[in-house]
Amino acid sequence: MRFVRLGEPGAERPAVLDDTDQAHDLTPLTPDIDGRFLAADGIAATRRALAAGELPVIASEGLRLGPPLARPGAVLCVGMNYAAHAAESGSAPPEQPVIFFKTPNTVVGAHDAVLIPRGSEKTDWEVELAVVIGRRARYLDSPAEALAHVAGYTVSNDVSERAFQTEHSGGQWSKGKCCETFNPLGPYLVPADEVPDPQALRLRSFVNGEIRQDSSTADMIFSVATLVHHLSQYLVLEPGDIVNTGTPQGVALSGRYPYLAPGDVMEIEIEGIGRQRQVLTAA
Amino acid sequence: MRFVRLGEPGAERPAVLDDTDQAHDLTPLTPDIDGRFLAADGIAATRRALAAGELPVIASEGLRLGPPLARPGAVLCVGMNYAAHAAESGSAPPEQPVIFFKTPNTVVGAHDAVLIPRGSEKTDWEVELAVVIGRRARYLDSPAEALAHVAGYTVSNDVSERAFQTEHSGGQWSKGKCCETFNPLGPYLVPADEVPDPQALRLRSFVNGEIRQDSSTADMIFSVATLVHHLSQYLVLEPGDIVNTGTPQGVALSGRYPYLAPGDVMEIEIEGIGRQRQVLTAA
Repeated sequence: MRFVRLGEPGAERPAVLDDTDQAHDLTPLTPDIDGRFLAADGIAATRRALAAGELPVIASEGLRLGPPLARPGAVLCVGMNYAAHAAESGSAPPEQPVIFFKTPNTVVGAHDAVLIPRGSEKTDWEVELAVVIGRRARYLDSPAEALAHVAGYTVSNDVSERAFQTEHSGGQWSKGKCCETFNPLGPYLVPADEVPDPQALRLRSFVNGEIRQDSSTADMIFSVATLVHHLSQYLVLEPGDIVNTGTPQGVALSGRYPYLAPGDVMEIEIEGIGRQRQVLTAA
Repeated sequence: MRFVRLGEPGAERPAVLDDTDQAHDLTPLTPDIDGRFLAADGIAATRRALAAGELPVIASEGLRLGPPLARPGAVLCVGMNYAAHAAESGSAPPEQPVIFFKTPNTVVGAHDAVLIPRGSEKTDWEVELAVVIGRRARYLDSPAEALAHVAGYTVSNDVSERAFQTEHSGGQWSKGKCCETFNPLGPYLVPADEVPDPQALRLRSFVNGEIRQDSSTADMIFSVATLVHHLSQYLVLEPGDIVNTGTPQGVALSGRYPYLAPGDVMEIEIEGIGRQRQVLTAA
């Protein structure tokens, strides 16, 4: 079972794909897939309704796949969470999770165009496992409690402009992370209980068909459970918040590959979670 | 004319104060004061309705003043935007605006308790002029266009935990800016056209009645118009976003004052915009 939102930007309708990939209308249960739906145990209610045949089959062919979560509250990002990426960025591995933010309006569909910002010469890709929060997390006692606060997982492309991030920014990275369209998300929200081990997922990125990143979430410095527990000591995570958990080595910032240009095609994929494809376009 | 939201957390009702400070119910016009209301020229509609006597008088005594904006989309903060504060923080004045973020769930009412986070030894105050965005701002041509995208102004206390901000963070400041209750906002949203010059406002803070900060928005390195124009080159500002425009000298980080402790009282004020009062409490 996977959640999707189908239709044009701003007019997406919630749906669920059953285990044969058949789409079912979710509007009998909820007006949208958002923090409120997740906090009210909407995933369990969907599973029951699907099993009971209460969700009508709908046609999905040809429809745009919007971001699988409506109105994210906050988009938190974890920096340098794979040791080899920290090294290629010229940094030592962090001793504690490093966080920065994307504005929620950066979130677009998994196959939408990504805009290269005006004045940009260093637009870069970053495949990341995105965690969608389902229960409010405040001062959790231990990492063992953390995964119960995760509703599900999806794929995030944490698109970055490196000059904006480090040269125009006084060192505060978010300035290169918030450009329009800079967070393709989806296409699927996969329920947490259908991901046996979030630390055993292969994640890859490709530019124009050539592989760039190829790692595993097993290589994260701080696991999903550790991140959620740690973040809850510094802020309150809300249902509908997203945590982008960091990217592995193989980005343009390393110097091994050219930055992105209009017409380039990014593809990013996490095993069992989903695959995205974006064409780069000038803003 | 000033906008307020009256009532308990999560159950505030929108209202407007007329020029005699009499409260009028705003629900005949809008269910709440949010980005949608501001983008639809709700301020002008309110002024017309108030003049026409269409908004019923309501009792406001004893009611809590909630944050004057519901559901902020993003809370952007500008760092080091007063030269003397940059100096007391050990930094050179920035060459370009430096931005970081608070999570939207940090926003609380102007007189609500502020929680000192668990493990905190360095909780600090920051009086700031908050800009509320009313129109989408994307690649504005010049600062001269910027103020037309501002719906109004309010007061922000950009509460900060300095160890979280700089020692636990790998240098990314947002980690010390997002703790629960860390953004008292309000009590009033003052329409932009009732603020003759946002760069000529005295702003002050007090701890336990002793003055700490006493400066003017005239001392900003980057004016409100410059900030909104500049930000619009890096991201899209949406109606209902907040921009905290930086704090002047006189915070505890300077070493001249002790950090906050439970039982302390913060008062912060911007001339003509509003005054806040918060009691510090252990989280």
